[in-house]
Amino acid sequence: MAHPKLSVRGATSPASPIRRLMPHADFAKSRGVHVHHLNIGQPDLPTVSPMRAAYQRFAEPVVAYSPSQGFAEYREALARYYNGLDIARGGPPIAADQILVTTGGSEALLFAIAAACDPGDSILVVEPYYTNYRGFAHMLGVEVVPVASEASEDFAIPAARVRAAIGARTRALVVPSPGNPTGAVLSRASLEALAAVCRERGLFFIVDEVYREFVYPAGGDLPSVAPSVLGVPDMAEHAVVIDSVSKRYSACGARVGCLVTRNADFYAACLRFAQARLSPPTVDQHAAMAALETPAAEMRGMIDEYRRRRDVLVGGLRSIPGVSCPTPRGAFYLVADLPVDDAEAFCTFLLREFSLNGETLMLAPAEGFYATPGKGRNQVRIAYVLGCARLERCLAILRAGLHAYEGRAAS
Amino acid sequence: MAHPKLSVRGATSPASPIRRLMPHADFAKSRGVHVHHLNIGQPDLPTVSPMRAAYQRFAEPVVAYSPSQGFAEYREALARYYNGLDIARGGPPIAADQILVTTGGSEALLFAIAAACDPGDSILVVEPYYTNYRGFAHMLGVEVVPVASEASEDFAIPAARVRAAIGARTRALVVPSPGNPTGAVLSRASLEALAAVCRERGLFFIVDEVYREFVYPAGGDLPSVAPSVLGVPDMAEHAVVIDSVSKRYSACGARVGCLVTRNADFYAACLRFAQARLSPPTVDQHAAMAALETPAAEMRGMIDEYRRRRDVLVGGLRSIPGVSCPTPRGAFYLVADLPVDDAEAFCTFLLREFSLNGETLMLAPAEGFYATPGKGRNQVRIAYVLGCARLERCLAILRAGLHAYEGRAAS
Repeated sequence: MAHPKLSVRGATSPASPIRRLMPHADFAKSRGVHVHHLNIGQPDLPTVSPMRAAYQRFAEPVVAYSPSQGFAEYREALARYYNGLDIARGGPPIAADQILVTTGGSEALLFAIAAACDPGDSILVVEPYYTNYRGFAHMLGVEVVPVASEASEDFAIPAARVRAAIGARTRALVVPSPGNPTGAVLSRASLEALAAVCRERGLFFIVDEVYREFVYPAGGDLPSVAPSVLGVPDMAEHAVVIDSVSKRYSACGARVGCLVTRNADFYAACLRFAQARLSPPTVDQHAAMAALETPAAEMRGMIDEYRRRRDVLVGGLRSIPGVSCPTPRGAFYLVADLPVDDAEAFCTFLLREFSLNGETLMLAPAEGFYATPGKGRNQVRIAYVLGCARLERCLAILRAGLHAYEGRAAS
Repeated sequence: MAHPKLSVRGATSPASPIRRLMPHADFAKSRGVHVHHLNIGQPDLPTVSPMRAAYQRFAEPVVAYSPSQGFAEYREALARYYNGLDIARGGPPIAADQILVTTGGSEALLFAIAAACDPGDSILVVEPYYTNYRGFAHMLGVEVVPVASEASEDFAIPAARVRAAIGARTRALVVPSPGNPTGAVLSRASLEALAAVCRERGLFFIVDEVYREFVYPAGGDLPSVAPSVLGVPDMAEHAVVIDSVSKRYSACGARVGCLVTRNADFYAACLRFAQARLSPPTVDQHAAMAALETPAAEMRGMIDEYRRRRDVLVGGLRSIPGVSCPTPRGAFYLVADLPVDDAEAFCTFLLREFSLNGETLMLAPAEGFYATPGKGRNQVRIAYVLGCARLERCLAILRAGLHAYEGRAAS
């Protein structure tokens, strides 16, 4: 008998540091401690009402495949949504056949990286970056090359730094805006500067815009919806938008996203990948189409809630000695510096050895969001996916936990 | 400005011949002709009743992510289903943590090929084969190496032929049973013979069992459920099952499948791929769990209906001069030889130039199911996804169409 061998990609596929903490969270729960999960982007806010109603309304006799590119009616509705945002004004309006419906934003990323890169090619990502960019790239045999961004610079992305990182096999720049994990939002000017680099060097510019609506402008420095690469002129060939209903409508489990590009060849390549997997989910697409009818007040309420949470969290963090963070301008994440050497060890401590009034906290060690060894070791990502009252309790736990951890280290 | 370049895999990803026929089908519809679609595996039968009810019952406030491996409760129910089928008797019972819930059987195939193969490695497939095996392999940089099966041999898969096709970089044998496109079902003995080759040569044996229940035994030569590789002894390391609710419960658009393996390392690799894409669809998983409660009579009714259709179709085809096909023993497809040189040209003729009482037919040219150039040129795949009365009309259209096509060629 000969033993079958896992592929190298299978054997070495990255597991995130959050996963390493899971058993510790289970341990905390087993000792009766309530764990507040600020470690993942799973909001507590209800899924928007038209979406919930759509599931209950579904009454077709056959849950059939949809077209591989998604239902035409949904793609037309999405085109109206994009064109209504006025983010397409840098080019012709977005047409339904420039939109490919995918199984979550995740699949849109997978297709985009596969269409841009062959095995051995590379994508540029700005660290700290969304960990799953690396997962998809790894699966496709693609290298991830980090470009540094710094908390001290509000996680801005200087075009010169991107340009300097481009190598012979670089095929695309992949950036989320609003950003996960940083909450940074690219201004129109930053987006244009990065787009210019991509045009000049022949890269695809893949922009993950799933948090588009979740921006918190201060003094008019940003529009009320994050600037989109779809609105940057002369980018028809280069620009690819990744989108999803997960966060916008608080429907992470619906697994409906899309990819938008004016590049017909790129679209055709992604469509062939999509044809192999037949169809995105049918009932979820109906729900996602209904989501586009969400009343403006309901959307506004959600955005205002995140802004309140951000303010509570940022204010609270800065009041804890040794803790600092830039003000996130969008999404519902931030990256904070903690007064510890090893944030993962501290997060483990919180779960295994600490509690305050029977409660503790799970945070995401930020080291997993960096490709450069050692970077982010003292940082955590915090997702503000819980209400303000609970966030206040989380802040008290963090403050007390840091104090206890310091005392423990000194003893 | 430098133009961005599609990857080679993006530029060369295979499009199926069915896709080439799509514009011709649109043309037929534009001239007012009704097109019967026997070209795709989208059944007309209603989705099983407990599944439809489950969508309407869904009332959770947040459509949240499920665990990346799927809901524990669903995986436990699936384990009971597998163990209840008594197909696991060759080894220990299947446990919930040997089941990974995926977004359709498609994603299970993608993960399995990625876990078995690196770019440049290859999988063996038995031609004619399910076209999308090639699509997933292509996306992952993996070669597809065909092993011939012949209509004249009832599409049996001789182990010696598989053994002879194994090369230095072969990592897995991928076989559907019951088969798409052939409808062939591997007997327990065939499965064991192929399993022995995989054990001997260190290959993963990836068996796509999504049509497990759709078998039509004749004289007790097959059990009433297709034999599963899960029941073959000494295959814990090698065996991987691909499964899906799409066909079994007539719910293709639900996008819920799973991968089953007793190989813990293989499972762990697939789970890491699954973690990158976060979650399979949540509401669809609830519906899929409900599907397991489908009354036996409802399942039986569906299987009997397919058997009736098969009998109508096979009998009808064989009564047409020059048409032949083996008797399919499972699934709802068959591959038929037509008395034409080029089945794609004939299928195009049916759509563009022919109709009978305002109706015509769309079939899948079988050449796309072969990797060997020229093979299957005179064959079509027919999916019996329409009721008997409609199949009778389709047979009349085919008969008349072949007659007209012959006359046209002669003129």
